[in-house]
Order: sequence, then structure tokens, then C-alpha cells
Amino acid sequence: MPMSLEDAQALDAADPLRGFRSQFQLPDGFIYLDGNSLGAAPKATFDEIDQAMRHEWAEDLITSWNKAGWFSLVTELGDQLAKLIGAGAGEVVVCDTVSTNIFKLLHAALGLRPDRKVIVGEGHCFPTDLYMSEGVAATASGVQLRMQGVDGDRLEDLIDDTVAVALINHVDYRTGELRDMAALTKIAHDAGALVIWDLCHSAGALPVDLNGAEADFAVGCTYKYLNGGPGAPGFIFAAQRHLAEVTQPLSGWWGHAAPFAFERGYRGDAGIRKFLCGTQPILSLRAVKPALDIFSQADMGALRTKSQALGNLFIDLVEERCAGHGLSLTCPRDADRRGSQVSFSHEEAYAILQALIADDVIGDFRAPNVMRFGFAPLYVGYADVWRAVDRLVHILESGIWQNERFHQRGAVT
Amino acid sequence: MPMSLEDAQALDAADPLRGFRSQFQLPDGFIYLDGNSLGAAPKATFDEIDQAMRHEWAEDLITSWNKAGWFSLVTELGDQLAKLIGAGAGEVVVCDTVSTNIFKLLHAALGLRPDRKVIVGEGHCFPTDLYMSEGVAATASGVQLRMQGVDGDRLEDLIDDTVAVALINHVDYRTGELRDMAALTKIAHDAGALVIWDLCHSAGALPVDLNGAEADFAVGCTYKYLNGGPGAPGFIFAAQRHLAEVTQPLSGWWGHAAPFAFERGYRGDAGIRKFLCGTQPILSLRAVKPALDIFSQADMGALRTKSQALGNLFIDLVEERCAGHGLSLTCPRDADRRGSQVSFSHEEAYAILQALIADDVIGDFRAPNVMRFGFAPLYVGYADVWRAVDRLVHILESGIWQNERFHQRGAVT
Repeated sequence: MPMSLEDAQALDAADPLRGFRSQFQLPDGFIYLDGNSLGAAPKATFDEIDQAMRHEWAEDLITSWNKAGWFSLVTELGDQLAKLIGAGAGEVVVCDTVSTNIFKLLHAALGLRPDRKVIVGEGHCFPTDLYMSEGVAATASGVQLRMQGVDGDRLEDLIDDTVAVALINHVDYRTGELRDMAALTKIAHDAGALVIWDLCHSAGALPVDLNGAEADFAVGCTYKYLNGGPGAPGFIFAAQRHLAEVTQPLSGWWGHAAPFAFERGYRGDAGIRKFLCGTQPILSLRAVKPALDIFSQADMGALRTKSQALGNLFIDLVEERCAGHGLSLTCPRDADRRGSQVSFSHEEAYAILQALIADDVIGDFRAPNVMRFGFAPLYVGYADVWRAVDRLVHILESGIWQNERFHQRGAVT
Repeated sequence: MPMSLEDAQALDAADPLRGFRSQFQLPDGFIYLDGNSLGAAPKATFDEIDQAMRHEWAEDLITSWNKAGWFSLVTELGDQLAKLIGAGAGEVVVCDTVSTNIFKLLHAALGLRPDRKVIVGEGHCFPTDLYMSEGVAATASGVQLRMQGVDGDRLEDLIDDTVAVALINHVDYRTGELRDMAALTKIAHDAGALVIWDLCHSAGALPVDLNGAEADFAVGCTYKYLNGGPGAPGFIFAAQRHLAEVTQPLSGWWGHAAPFAFERGYRGDAGIRKFLCGTQPILSLRAVKPALDIFSQADMGALRTKSQALGNLFIDLVEERCAGHGLSLTCPRDADRRGSQVSFSHEEAYAILQALIADDVIGDFRAPNVMRFGFAPLYVGYADVWRAVDRLVHILESGIWQNERFHQRGAVT
């Protein structure tokens, strides 16, 4: 007997995280299961940005670089974010894009392993990780890529003593599979290799313990589960033990040890600021702060518990109520091996998802045939999950997804 | 007989650009001569950002990538900016930071001249240009830097048939010297070399004619004279004739020919989007639009005429009224060889500038001994210049700059 809407509403009423939802501005009527692509807006962000643009910029102008702390925002936010991902103060900086940060870190890792020429990546990961690895290979003499899914099935089998660094996603963007960070890091370290963890789909979605796993480096995103706003800057983690020695080639003035001394030669900052390059986009950067403030009030263990329960409920309801409609689960069934998202494949996934969106249930499509639904536990509830599946049932049973308008392809987000 | 305040006010009353000032939010009492470092805020920006964050992000969420045109903003703004710098549609994209964009373009140019291994730069330019050139040399086999001011006095003497590319500032950030873009480009082309023009201190400050000069590439900044907001994204120009062949190594998913096809291998866009890398910071990017809208109403010839008149007035008044106080002009006296800024050196430039700032005249200090004043003709008037010099006279004659508090060094912007 599937759970009823009333049962789901009772779970919401008992949810220890239920108070967080009111801190987000959510549109009426939408069921938003795409916080893994673009997180919802914290209400406090509007005032924060008003302050930054109407007062700090417009009234105080250039003096705000110091007076309003714009220049130190990158590390201030880094230290705040560090607490969510098991890092220490001075190990995280918020800057640039995830793609750019991957470039910096791959070169940084290659520099620490000058005798090794192999980068291990994942053939099915979000493509920018591979595209940036190609860019690194083109700018690092003799470096080659070795890809899971192409050169071998298992990451652990691809890591040997020729490997300088592996770039691994903590949570797979398509399947939602959660990797064992400590175990894979140890395998890499045992082979003398380094690991860069891509936390795009885990930071803010579940507890992350970089230092507990003895991680070397990580990149991540602040606009998905962390609610920093569209295209908000990415972040870089570098373990304290690597900071003295490591270098990176995007050696712009913000990463200089004395950026305002205007020295002719580059001399990198001794700490995490060495991963900076150019002047950061302050309005977008500033929007990250109110979002991190919300997370600083949240218990990540409780968040994970709810995230798993939401995912389990979604899977159970789909399998019970949509049986026979050709949907196949493509994420791990075991919640401990899954991030905060659930995915199903279907031959007509694209059209079905368009029909869901037309019915105000927002998930996303990932080529070639995957429907992906993310559960941001701070603002998604059990009744949301129930209603989303209820509308999916209606779409499948009515066959409305066969309507031609749901098959037209545009740019898909 | 120096010009009087009344004379300056009469010039303001007759200024054909006087109507633009009301489109900017300027603080009461400040005389802001630092628009060459951070431009003033257009009033329309506040509504634009409100719309982007309170409605597009908060209400429409992920759908805004298409519906609100977030994804195409980089080229839409590029096409708008192109008109200000003598470029064509499809030749300019707004993205990332100036430093990052220099890295892309230096590699791009080196790729077009594979048999050449020398980058020519300027030893006295804003240091990030040199720092990024170092980063490129570290990631491009056998490439060396040759610097004006170190390896020779004149740029034209450093360019020979071993040079792949020269990175030249259109306006020198310290001295304000304006370079002859067409002549230097021709010298480089005659030697078989390419040129990247750094427009940080010329775009929005004076007419720029990239295609008229047969320029190859350019980078620039939107947060100085272009009023895009603190740390607003930079831009890249690439001449149409180079677009088919050129590549760059920051090969992230936004630069892919089919970013949503999630192909495994990188395949760059055929056009200017190939210079993109990662997801752009939408709030900061969006703030560029109202600023460019203002420039689209302005006549750049009239803007240049006023800019030169403001700079001449500042020089004349300082030389007439501050004689004997140890100030030396360090920018070209000839307005046709000068950007929209004026600089004076003084042994105690730092302290004098701090005293000016305390008296609400905002200029900036550039190590070791330069005071720099920028004139943004859309919101700076002749009476502003008069009052700024009047306060400088007072500071020098009273000796108030000798007060210890003006000598304390903090981070200087």
C-alpha cells in the first residue's frame, strides 16, 4: 500500500528541518526538484545584494574593497564553507568557475608529481571535467588521460604508479552514485597518486569530510545545493600539507603574495589565496554569503537523513504507482550509496520530463534518456515528493507526454 | 590666471554630455576621480539586478537559463560592447576575468604561430599581464617572455620574426599613455606576429577601433570606465578571420559546440563562444547590461573631447596652483597621447593621496610614488576637477598630509 498524501504531510509536520523552508523564496505552485542544478533563493540574499550594490558600490565606491571586505570575501566565504566539507580554516577559497578551478588543480597536482604523466578521469562524468582535463593535457608536456568507462571499468583498477592524479566526482551527476571518498583516496595514495574530488553534487547535500578522508584537493559549486545564485563562483580546497609546495599556472594578481606591491615577477601567496587569479565578481560572490549562513544553522546529519528518506520515498512511490510504464531506476537503490538525487531512465524521458515541467514539477533531463530529480532537504518536503509522483502517474497513465509539443528540443538546462 | 570655479561651472552648463550624470548614483560630497578603477553605479542597474534575483532566479529558477536569456547573455553583451570598440557582431564575448582571458588569448595566439616561441610584454604594465604571461610560459613548451623596459626600451624594437604575440596595453595604467593601436599592430603583422590589446583603460574611455586597426585579439574590463560593477566579468575580442582556426586550453563546457549534448570529447564552438569556459556569474554579468545601455546613447567622440578637456584642465590647474610643491607630471601632456587619466608623482604621493581621500577627493595611489586621477566624462564635470585641485592646493599649502595618520599603509586599492 503506497504512502498517502496525508502520511507524507504528517512526515513534514514532524520534520526537524521544517523551519528552514521559510528562509527560501519559493514560487507558488512549483514543486522544485532541481535544486541540484540551480538552488532556490534565500530570502536574505535580496537584502545582502541590495546592500552591496546600493550602498557599498554606489555610495562607498572604491573604498569598499577594504571597508566592506570585498577583497577578503573569497577567503571569508571559504572558511565558512570549509566547515560544511570537513576542511580547516585557510584550506578553502571561493572563486572563478568549477571548470577553471579544475584546470588549476590538475596542473597543481601534476606539479607535485613531476615524474608521472597520467590523469585518471571518469568517462561518464559531467563533461566539463573531461574537457578541462583535455585542456590540461594540451598544456602539460606528455600528459595523457586514462578514462573510467573507456580504458577500464573500475577507477581503482586504473590507478597505478604512473598516475599523477585522479579527478573523481564525489556524487555522479547522472546516476547519483556516491563514492567512498576515504577508500578511493587511500587507494590513490597507496599508489603514490593524488586525488581531486569534485564536490559539485555533494557539497551542501550531505556531510563531506575532506580532512577525515585525507583528501588532497577538491573543487565544487555554490549554485546547486548551496543556493549561491545562478553561476555563483566555484570553490577550491587544498589540504594544508600541500599549500607550501603547490603552484598553479593561472597566476594572476589576486594570487600574488603582495598583490598591491605591483612587483614585476609572480610570487604566489603562501596560503590558499595562491589559487586565486583575477578580480572576482563581487555581486555574485556576495550572494553566496546568506546561503552559507543558512547552512551554518543546519545539522548536516539531519539533512542527510531527510535527503535519504525523500529519495527512498520517491523511488518507492514511482515503483509502486508507475509500474509497467517503462521506467528504470538508474541510481543506487541503497540510500547510503546515493547522493541527494534520484534518476530514472525511459526511452521517452525527454518528453515525459517536459510534460512534468508543464505540470509545474521541475526536474531535469540528462542526455540521452535520463530524468533526474534532486532533493534539497532544506526546502523540499515529503508532500512535495508525493505530489510530484502523483503528477508523474497522471502523465504516464493519460499518455499526455505523447503530445508533440513535449518532443520539441531546445537548449535543455 | 587660472580658471575660476565659475568658469568651470559655465563649462559644465554647456557640456553636451551633462545629461548623463543623472543616470548614475553618485554619493553626495565625493569628488570621484577613480572611475578608472571602479566605475560608478548606473541607477538602472538596481532594478535590473532586482529583476534577475527576485524574479528570474527566485520565481522562475532553472527555467531562466533559457527564458530569461541567461545562457546567451555573454554574447548579447558582447555584441553590444562590440559597437563601442570597433568590433563586429560575433567577435566579442563577456566572461571570466581579464587575467583568465589573457591566459586564453596568449595560448590562442601561440597556437596560431606554432613555430614561434616569444611573447613580448611590457615590463611596467599592470602586473597581472606579466604574471599571466609567466603562467602561459610555464604551460607552453619552450616559450619565453621578452619585456619592454627590461630587454629593450621600445616595443617596436622587441618585435621580430621570433615573436608569436605581443600583449600591449592600449592605455598604460600608470602613466596614462595611449598607444597607437593601428601602427603597432602593423609593425607586429609585418614581422608575422599577432597582437593582443589590453583595453582595460581604454574601453569606455575613448573611441577604440579594433577592426579599423586590423587587431587580432583584445581583452578588457567592464568594471572601470564601463560601470559594470565591482569585479564584473571581463571580455574577449577575437577577429572574425581568426575564429575558425583558433583554439584555447580553458576548454570548458560553455565553450563546447554542443554544451548540452554532453559529448565525451571537447569540440569547440565555431564562433566566439569557443573562448568561454565555465558557467558565468549571472548577477555580476547582468549588471553589465544597464551600463552598456548608457554607453549606447553616448557619442564616443564627444566623450573623448570632454575627457581630454577635463585632463587638460586638471594638469593646468595643478601646475599653476601647486607649483613648488614637488609634483611632477608623469602622463603625456599631449591629450592625443593620453587616455582618460592624469598622473603626478611625488615623493610623498601616498600620504598626499590619503589626505585627499579624507577630504572626499577619491583618486588612487600606484606604487611607488604615483597619484592617479581618472576622468569618467559621463559623470565627472569641470567643477569637480576644479574643486579637486582646490583641495589638493589646500593639502599641500597647509602641510596636513604630514599628519602621521596619512602615512599608515593598508591594502591600497
